[in-house]
Amino acid sequence: MVRDRGFKALEAVEIAVKKMFEKLRTIGVEEVSVYGCQGRVLAKDVVADCDVPEFDKSAMDGYAVIAEDTFGASQNNPVILKLVGKIEVGKIPNLRIKSGEAVRVYTGSAIPAKANAVVMLEHTKEENGFVQVFKGVSPYKNVVRKGEDLKKGEIVLRKGEILQPQDAGILASLGFRSVEVFKKPRVAVISTGNELIALEEKKEAGKIYNSNSPMICNALVELGFEAFPLGIAKDNAENVERKLFEALNFDAIIFTGGTSVGSYDLVPEVVSKHGEIVFHGVAMRPGMPSAFGLVEGKPVFMLPGSPTACFLAFNTFVIPALYRMMGVRVLERKGSRKKGVLQARVASEIGIRSYVRVLWENGKVYPMRVSGSSVLSSIVKSNALLVVPEDVEGYEEGEEVEVILLRDITEVLE
Amino acid sequence: MVRDRGFKALEAVEIAVKKMFEKLRTIGVEEVSVYGCQGRVLAKDVVADCDVPEFDKSAMDGYAVIAEDTFGASQNNPVILKLVGKIEVGKIPNLRIKSGEAVRVYTGSAIPAKANAVVMLEHTKEENGFVQVFKGVSPYKNVVRKGEDLKKGEIVLRKGEILQPQDAGILASLGFRSVEVFKKPRVAVISTGNELIALEEKKEAGKIYNSNSPMICNALVELGFEAFPLGIAKDNAENVERKLFEALNFDAIIFTGGTSVGSYDLVPEVVSKHGEIVFHGVAMRPGMPSAFGLVEGKPVFMLPGSPTACFLAFNTFVIPALYRMMGVRVLERKGSRKKGVLQARVASEIGIRSYVRVLWENGKVYPMRVSGSSVLSSIVKSNALLVVPEDVEGYEEGEEVEVILLRDITEVLE
Repeated sequence: MVRDRGFKALEAVEIAVKKMFEKLRTIGVEEVSVYGCQGRVLAKDVVADCDVPEFDKSAMDGYAVIAEDTFGASQNNPVILKLVGKIEVGKIPNLRIKSGEAVRVYTGSAIPAKANAVVMLEHTKEENGFVQVFKGVSPYKNVVRKGEDLKKGEIVLRKGEILQPQDAGILASLGFRSVEVFKKPRVAVISTGNELIALEEKKEAGKIYNSNSPMICNALVELGFEAFPLGIAKDNAENVERKLFEALNFDAIIFTGGTSVGSYDLVPEVVSKHGEIVFHGVAMRPGMPSAFGLVEGKPVFMLPGSPTACFLAFNTFVIPALYRMMGVRVLERKGSRKKGVLQARVASEIGIRSYVRVLWENGKVYPMRVSGSSVLSSIVKSNALLVVPEDVEGYEEGEEVEVILLRDITEVLE
Repeated sequence: MVRDRGFKALEAVEIAVKKMFEKLRTIGVEEVSVYGCQGRVLAKDVVADCDVPEFDKSAMDGYAVIAEDTFGASQNNPVILKLVGKIEVGKIPNLRIKSGEAVRVYTGSAIPAKANAVVMLEHTKEENGFVQVFKGVSPYKNVVRKGEDLKKGEIVLRKGEILQPQDAGILASLGFRSVEVFKKPRVAVISTGNELIALEEKKEAGKIYNSNSPMICNALVELGFEAFPLGIAKDNAENVERKLFEALNFDAIIFTGGTSVGSYDLVPEVVSKHGEIVFHGVAMRPGMPSAFGLVEGKPVFMLPGSPTACFLAFNTFVIPALYRMMGVRVLERKGSRKKGVLQARVASEIGIRSYVRVLWENGKVYPMRVSGSSVLSSIVKSNALLVVPEDVEGYEEGEEVEVILLRDITEVLE
């Protein structure tokens, strides 16, 4: 940098980010409760240590039957089965049925031995110990099969996944109380400038309130990071140094202001004195005076003092860096809408809004084949939702559809 | 509802949401620190009580001049001005310049009386008390004018705005230490089902872990709500009632499971006994057994027990309801990409990535006219960002462009 003479050369944004990424590492792992894992980055693959469900279970209230017994049943020509018991939810039955028999079951009930389907209550009538079945069922209709959701030994969630509510659900269903995630950087925030006063101070002529600190702190909180505002450093090397040393107690340091090439822009010089500058001056507008360096291995983000430039530089450099410090690069954010070509037909009933779990990958949309709404893994193995409105009967294979991402798409960086 | 006989009629999703909204109200307002206002909903308009900035100030390091003095200056033919002082940032000058004079200023310095432009340091050379100016400036070049960011009396942020980091910045720059927002609902979460065991319990045959509670709690936390998991209710009216009464200490109540029309689906019955059912049975799949009611004025969300259905019903009903309880309907979420037609030309320099603040409204994109990166209001008055890549010189009026929303678009509901 050449003081007071402008930037000799500007780094392209992509190059600046690349140089920054080369200097960043993760800062360790920790266990967090599945009740508090939202947005955390998984540090190792999670493997199912049991089948989910651990037994064939009913997806409906109704009667467990041998499907073949019900073939041909209709409203006018019901099949009549003998009721031989009921299975409450949460109990393991020691019942076995024979052809011609039915057992009352509830949503979530285990299915008795030899039964292979459930007739919905709506399609039955129970009278005097017998059940009339008005509609036939095919084998495994209304049954969630053992291991259908997850098979023992299967990788359920991969390292680098940013954990979502549905992941907390699946982790809990496997009995995990906690999960190993990368530590979140704790971030110190310092504003520099002789003109700045803290919000608690009385306004003086010529002074302005420190607005970058609350802005940056809120931006950190929004993404689930802890922000530690360390106040204001005056525009002298001693003051900037003192704040820098204090900030070294945290995992990452953000300075706002004092990053350009003017006489009062001391931050890059102080960082250079105690560490290294990785880039200074970026081909972006606003945000040109952005800089990045390291002191004692801790990343130091030097953001312009002008609030808009500060905001944009934060989004351009700090957010990717903090995720990099948790081992990932975020390629697509959850909630984004993506277009893609359907790889299989999707059917939906007119009058019903259907939420189809799909896997979106490079412009292709693969619908998940799932039998029931109890299959939670369908929202873990899928990464997007295709909403079929009430007035649409479905979509054909090859049609372009728009889906909403249900999770971030990440790339693991170590 | 007709027990064990299916739903008589299903409510369309839109109608269900409409009926629910009619029953919901805000739950009061509170003051929160500008350091902790992220994602909160503003409860009243914020008006600027002073100009920002309060004085004409320099946007650059350089020399404050009378613009007209510099007309025609060039590298070979510099204009020579007499240096008559310097103005440090944060000081109010009692200097006045005359034609032929210049004053050294820094980014953020107040401009002396009669000066009306700043020449960038890069375009000058200082020697023996004189400044050579190599490039002319037009009036107010490199000057942020008094009130340019915000004018006293101007509405800065409107009631119903979901506060973003940039809003915290602007609030701080106006000297606000706290801001009045709608209270966030505190949400109780109860899972029902005889088959459920808590994560702390030892696994028994036939039982499954309560996975909906951690899923829902994480989903609440993701949006900044406080979640209070109240454990598991067994499938009997007494147990469900006891949990319901405990949950009435909170602002909203979520039950998962026991919401369908089977013999063990007791939640809607208990809610009906102590309050009212607003809808039960929705034309969505998964999620059909979703229900909503009120007990002692508190909203009770009855979500299906099947995890995927639970997840989708949460997103469909609970999220909009919780925002409605903060006075808004969210129409578009921050981070969404929107297409729109540019209403004015946007220029950008080749080799520089430009971040243009724009207002996106119903498919139209209005670039904000701002002079410098210090104008924070440009990211408050705009609602989206148009990124012009390095290899693009800009976009023409009438061109379709894609922008990224910088804030949620909301509709105030009271």
